[in-house]
Amino acid sequence: MPALLRIVLVRPRDPNNIGAAARAMANFGLSDLRVVAPHPPVWREAKSAVGAEALLRGAREAATIAEAVAGCRHVWATSALKGRRPGLAVLELPSLRRPRGCAAILFGPEKTGLTGEDLAHASRLIRIPTGARQPSMNLASAVAVVCYEWAREHSPPPAATLEEPAGAEQKQRLWGLVEALARSVGWPAGERTRRLKAAVHKSNVSEPDAGMALELLRRLLARH
Amino acid sequence: MPALLRIVLVRPRDPNNIGAAARAMANFGLSDLRVVAPHPPVWREAKSAVGAEALLRGAREAATIAEAVAGCRHVWATSALKGRRPGLAVLELPSLRRPRGCAAILFGPEKTGLTGEDLAHASRLIRIPTGARQPSMNLASAVAVVCYEWAREHSPPPAATLEEPAGAEQKQRLWGLVEALARSVGWPAGERTRRLKAAVHKSNVSEPDAGMALELLRRLLARH
Repeated sequence: MPALLRIVLVRPRDPNNIGAAARAMANFGLSDLRVVAPHPPVWREAKSAVGAEALLRGAREAATIAEAVAGCRHVWATSALKGRRPGLAVLELPSLRRPRGCAAILFGPEKTGLTGEDLAHASRLIRIPTGARQPSMNLASAVAVVCYEWAREHSPPPAATLEEPAGAEQKQRLWGLVEALARSVGWPAGERTRRLKAAVHKSNVSEPDAGMALELLRRLLARH
Repeated sequence: MPALLRIVLVRPRDPNNIGAAARAMANFGLSDLRVVAPHPPVWREAKSAVGAEALLRGAREAATIAEAVAGCRHVWATSALKGRRPGLAVLELPSLRRPRGCAAILFGPEKTGLTGEDLAHASRLIRIPTGARQPSMNLASAVAVVCYEWAREHSPPPAATLEEPAGAEQKQRLWGLVEALARSVGWPAGERTRRLKAAVHKSNVSEPDAGMALELLRRLLARH
C-alpha cells in the first residue's frame, strides 16, 4: 500500500492561504486536501491555487477534525509550540519518514494555531524547526515545507540536463590559442604560463561554450 | 567563516509574496534580503511579513542583479526548468550543502521565473524537486522551502582543500573585459553575447586563476 498524505487545514481564514497551500500540494504530487470549518465561503475560488484549481475544487469540506481525518491510520499535528509543553511526542520535520498507511497532518488557523482540543485528535506533533525569534510560519509556507519534506525522501535522481563537458582535444585547442595570445602580449614563460595552462585544463567549460571561446580567441588572434 | 545565505527576489510583483518570503526567512534565522526592481512601490509595508517587519524594512533594493549579488562568493538561481535544457549545472535542492562564504540565491518573478539573461549571473541552478504536473511554485513557498533546506543542513562546510572560487564581483570584472574584447572583434550582440556572459559566470574558475585571467585580458585589451 503506497504511503498517502492528507493535508487538513483547520479553520483557515484566508482564501489565498488555502489556494497557495493547494498549489504547494500540487507541486509535490499530493492531492488529498480537507478543509475543516473554513471561515470564508469563497475559498474554493482562491486565485492563488495556480495549477491546483481542480485540486481545490475537489477538496472536501468537513465540519469537524474527526470527520476530516476519517479513514487515516495516522493523525499528526503541526505546531510552533511557542513555549508550551506538549503532551504529545514531538517529531522534528526533518526526521519525518513515510509511515505505512495514510497519514493526515493538521495545520491550525493562521493567527492562533491548533488548540489543545484540536491536538487531542493527534498521536504526535510535527515541529518544523523554526527559530525562537519567529517560530510561527505562514500557513501556505508551512504546508509547502511539509509537502517538500514528504517528497524529499523519494525525490528522483537529477535529470540528465547538463551540457557535455569539453573534451581533452578541445581543451588543447583552447590552450593553443590562449598560449599564442598570451605570448603576443609578453606573458612570462615558465611558472606563470604553466599556471595558465593548468587553469584552461581544469576548467569545467562545456563543449558548446568551448566552441564559442575558440571562435572568440581566433578572432582576437587574427587582430594581433 | 560562517555560511551566509542572501535571498534575492528578482522583479517580484506581489507585495504579499515579498512579505511572506521575508517571514519565511525569519522563520529559519535568515536576514539578508535583496529585492531587484520590485514592481510595486509599497512592498516594504506588506502585511504578510508577520514577525519579519524589521527584516523587510531593512531589505535592500537594487536596480540590477549584479548590484544585488555584490559581495557574494556564489550566485545560484532557482528555476522550474519547464522542459528547458539549461547550460548550467543543476543541483537538486535536497543535495544542497552550505558552501564556504556567502551565497546568493535568485528567485524570479511570479509569472515568468528568471529569464535567460537573469540566469547568466548564476554559476548553478537549484531545482526544487517539484512534479511535472505543476512544477511552478508560489514565490513565498519556494523561498520557504529553500530556507528550510538551508537550515536543515547542519553539516560543516567542506574542507578547505580546493582553491577559493572566484566571487561574483571578480566574475563581473572578468565579464566586463571579455565583453569589451568581444566587441572589439565584432562579436554579435544579443543571444551570442548573452551566451558568452553566461559562460563566464557559470565557470568554476578559482580566485587566483581569475586574477591571472584578468591580467591577461587587460593586456590584450591594451593592445586593441
